[in-house]
Amino acid sequence: MPLSTRIHTMPLRVRYAETDAAGLAHHGSYPAWLEAARVEWLRAGGVSYADLEKQGYHLAVVEMRLRYIAPARFDDLLHVRIALVRARSREALFDYEIVSASEHPRQIATATTRHLSLHQGRLAPLPPALRAQLDTTGDAQGARAEEE
Amino acid sequence: MPLSTRIHTMPLRVRYAETDAAGLAHHGSYPAWLEAARVEWLRAGGVSYADLEKQGYHLAVVEMRLRYIAPARFDDLLHVRIALVRARSREALFDYEIVSASEHPRQIATATTRHLSLHQGRLAPLPPALRAQLDTTGDAQGARAEEE
Amino acid sequence: MPLSTRIHTMPLRVRYAETDAAGLAHHGSYPAWLEAARVEWLRAGGVSYADLEKQGYHLAVVEMRLRYIAPARFDDLLHVRIALVRARSREALFDYEIVSASEHPRQIATATTRHLSLHQGRLAPLPPALRAQLDTTGDAQGARAEEE
Amino acid sequence: MPLSTRIHTMPLRVRYAETDAAGLAHHGSYPAWLEAARVEWLRAGGVSYADLEKQGYHLAVVEMRLRYIAPARFDDLLHVRIALVRARSREALFDYEIVSASEHPRQIATATTRHLSLHQGRLAPLPPALRAQLDTTGDAQGARAEEE
Repeated sequence: MPLSTRIHTMPLRVRYAETDAAGLAHHGSYPAWLEAARVEWLRAGGVSYADLEKQGYHLAVVEMRLRYIAPARFDDLLHVRIALVRARSREALFDYEIVSASEHPRQIATATTRHLSLHQGRLAPLPPALRAQLDTTGDAQGARAEEE
Repeated sequence: MPLSTRIHTMPLRVRYAETDAAGLAHHGSYPAWLEAARVEWLRAGGVSYADLEKQGYHLAVVEMRLRYIAPARFDDLLHVRIALVRARSREALFDYEIVSASEHPRQIATATTRHLSLHQGRLAPLPPALRAQLDTTGDAQGARAEEE
Repeated sequence: MPLSTRIHTMPLRVRYAETDAAGLAHHGSYPAWLEAARVEWLRAGGVSYADLEKQGYHLAVVEMRLRYIAPARFDDLLHVRIALVRARSREALFDYEIVSASEHPRQIATATTRHLSLHQGRLAPLPPALRAQLDTTGDAQGARAEEE
Repeated sequence: MPLSTRIHTMPLRVRYAETDAAGLAHHGSYPAWLEAARVEWLRAGGVSYADLEKQGYHLAVVEMRLRYIAPARFDDLLHVRIALVRARSREALFDYEIVSASEHPRQIATATTRHLSLHQGRLAPLPPALRAQLDTTGDAQGARAEEE
């Protein structure tokens, strides 16, 4: 399956509720940001994750890795950059970079999530709407593109 | 319907993730504590909320009121006290008091939640398991007990 | 102190992380939305809450009331409307209305939060930046405007 | 620095607020569980993380990795098992295993977090209270124990 090289950038404002007593964005707040970025990445490609779920699909997170490089603080404006870096028939891997939204962006965090495609709760090929999108936006040059 | 005068106390340790940049437990962390206390109140009365949901029931929160009296901090041990203070055929009202878990408890917050009983998504009488429990534990003396 | 009649509307996309097993936006997700709307209301009036905090100010939530009128779901686009409805020397009261972001908005929830103004942890007059903003945007006609 | 081979097990009840529209515990709920387990691991060893923070220490999370093996659901009783698997002068690495709390435990997730020790916001040796605890509870046999 060809790799999507499309990168989407989601702006994000750190909420007060997402901070902790250390005065920083809590490390446990980041997974919801990555997830929101995935939904926007799909939408930018014409796919509604809400619709996928109504059709019985689910991209279950089976692995998540985060590196916290520099702290983010309340009210910081961040950019979450996301790309699909690997797609097999029943698996997808996304890479993320969170940077400060400034002229000279500072790297805040990097992350990877791995997903299994489920349909009606069972392992299944990636949803057609997502595969169709890969076909049109991707190419096979990416270092991590893999066929099954 | 008779009032349940049973009071349940749920101990709770404030998690770091529940604090905010002001160094205190974030006010938005409290609703999950009240909810956990409701589940434990039901369990103490022999009712599993997970089972109720499997039977198609849901006690939807339609109103929530919180008064924040004194701050709570990371790692504080709290007691969430809960009682059912009103039960009508399709409605339930719980009162809460959150206090510090010490010899001389300090009041941290008080709260009220109002719930509508739903079955398969439609307004319905309170689940039988809950009504049965009211019959055995309650009496009609409470100031706010009401019949419909 | 005159009332600010300025209304701010903050768009909001319901995150998957903010839903619960009932398939709806969890009632405990709303307080963070109200808080984000307060920050944007302030910003629209030229006041940065992050700056206020750096100056030692804090608008502590001492009361919160929410009415849940209709459910919100994952990926729903909502509008959080907020207005300052009462300001005394050391207290502020905000009203909120959450509606669906559509041509024919449906009311999702209403809410009120009451805040005490703290400076260096002690009860203090509202921050000058906020008072200045009240002076220029408000008038004394509001039903709930109050002087102290 | 010797390795602590002490394993701590923290029981945990999945809250309704921690579930999502897929009907499962949301993957973003787990980091707060790991964090709570770290605090309890420290407490079981006689160290209060709240006290460490009052002394100016902070164990900043710089990396987190989670593998989601089987879903957890609302009201599930889980056990979070935690051990310190590596300690250098300014770094600590914890491993976690989340299992169902039953006679025949099912593995729900595994995780690793890496922490840097900060004092007054600057990289610093691990707090003395933690080092003292390592000396008494640990030995150097662990595969990943490392000296600096």
